[in-house]
Amino acid sequence: MVAEDKLVGIIGGMGPNATVDFMSRILQATPASTDQDHVRMVIENNPRIPSRQLAMRGEGQDPGSEIAAIAARLEAAGAEFLVMPCNLAHAWQSEIEAAVSIPFVSIVDVSVQSALDRSDDGSAVGLMTTPGCFTAGLYQQALAASGRPVITQTPDELAATLSLVERIKSGDQSVEVASGLRTLANELVNRGAKVLIAACTEFPLVLDESMFDVAFVSSTEVLAGRTVAIALGTEKLQ
Amino acid sequence: MVAEDKLVGIIGGMGPNATVDFMSRILQATPASTDQDHVRMVIENNPRIPSRQLAMRGEGQDPGSEIAAIAARLEAAGAEFLVMPCNLAHAWQSEIEAAVSIPFVSIVDVSVQSALDRSDDGSAVGLMTTPGCFTAGLYQQALAASGRPVITQTPDELAATLSLVERIKSGDQSVEVASGLRTLANELVNRGAKVLIAACTEFPLVLDESMFDVAFVSSTEVLAGRTVAIALGTEKLQ
Repeated sequence: MVAEDKLVGIIGGMGPNATVDFMSRILQATPASTDQDHVRMVIENNPRIPSRQLAMRGEGQDPGSEIAAIAARLEAAGAEFLVMPCNLAHAWQSEIEAAVSIPFVSIVDVSVQSALDRSDDGSAVGLMTTPGCFTAGLYQQALAASGRPVITQTPDELAATLSLVERIKSGDQSVEVASGLRTLANELVNRGAKVLIAACTEFPLVLDESMFDVAFVSSTEVLAGRTVAIALGTEKLQ
Repeated sequence: MVAEDKLVGIIGGMGPNATVDFMSRILQATPASTDQDHVRMVIENNPRIPSRQLAMRGEGQDPGSEIAAIAARLEAAGAEFLVMPCNLAHAWQSEIEAAVSIPFVSIVDVSVQSALDRSDDGSAVGLMTTPGCFTAGLYQQALAASGRPVITQTPDELAATLSLVERIKSGDQSVEVASGLRTLANELVNRGAKVLIAACTEFPLVLDESMFDVAFVSSTEVLAGRTVAIALGTEKLQ
């Protein structure tokens, strides 16, 4: 049992399978031999948040106020820091931070740091994501300071990626979907990427690092590792 | 999107892997093609609740007040009904119900109903569980009204079951653990059971129905199905 641990609040449901996958990776990343060694979590799994992809296209309802309301409810439930296993939803990070007084740990920041740590200085980073997250520019901005070349997807590749992500969200975790995403990721490698950032939490439902010849940074897994470290007090919040 | 759905509150963390497995089975049991079709859930995954096995042996701290406090926090977070993917913890159901004004759906009741529905009238039910849950008598009491013969485990079998459950809780989901539990379950079949109730939410982490020649009622899966039906309004709360 850990004496001074922190309760993590998880803004979940975007999508629900990605949230469960994230929780599962938190458990896998925890050194535990009994129930009591595990991290305390409070999760609101709210799949009814309006579509983030539609909002980034200027269509449909803005999800910001709902995401911020979840953050506030998690703080009220005792959460001491927040994480959100959805990359695109980080486009509304400022609304979350305005709604709470506890720290929010960004999946973008930890994934970019991991990609830089895992590749040689100067090597190109491949950014694999969805159209909404690409348009939001979250990763491009976070990578800009590093001076690294960033290989991005074409509009057609982004559209093809979203179409496969939507199949995952509908419950299709087939080899065909995995193979389609792998081919799209390898286009970035063919264009010079030495490390891939998987900037969508649906990807690790069908892809893993063993499928690639370069480093494959799963944003889900990196955030899970950081969450465990903060919750158990082995790493501090910055 | 479902207009009149109910927010489910999940009392989780006993153990955490069983909670994540339960959530995963909720997602699998939901007819969904987009995020928005899924069930809204709020979960407190609190693995620091004192050991229920120890408490049933009259050792260690009583977990009742902590379990009830979680129930109250979930109600405060907006939950409209509660479920708890841990069989033994239902020994403290009266403390939960005293702490909240929303309905609590018992895993014992739904599993017993499923076992009766899935077997011929009069056939014997095999009860596979842990020593704590056996001592609490939850299933024996719930089955008594049915008039069905109940085949139970010997003290040695219960102890052997707990030892394997503790291995699962430590992260061991090996074939060896699965095989050990399967052998223990088949002892009940050899003694006449025509349907097995898997009355521990750790079992489905390594066992599934395809491993048995008789009906195998996973309490996790039955509760997940009932949770989806109530949340989406296809079944009413009783």
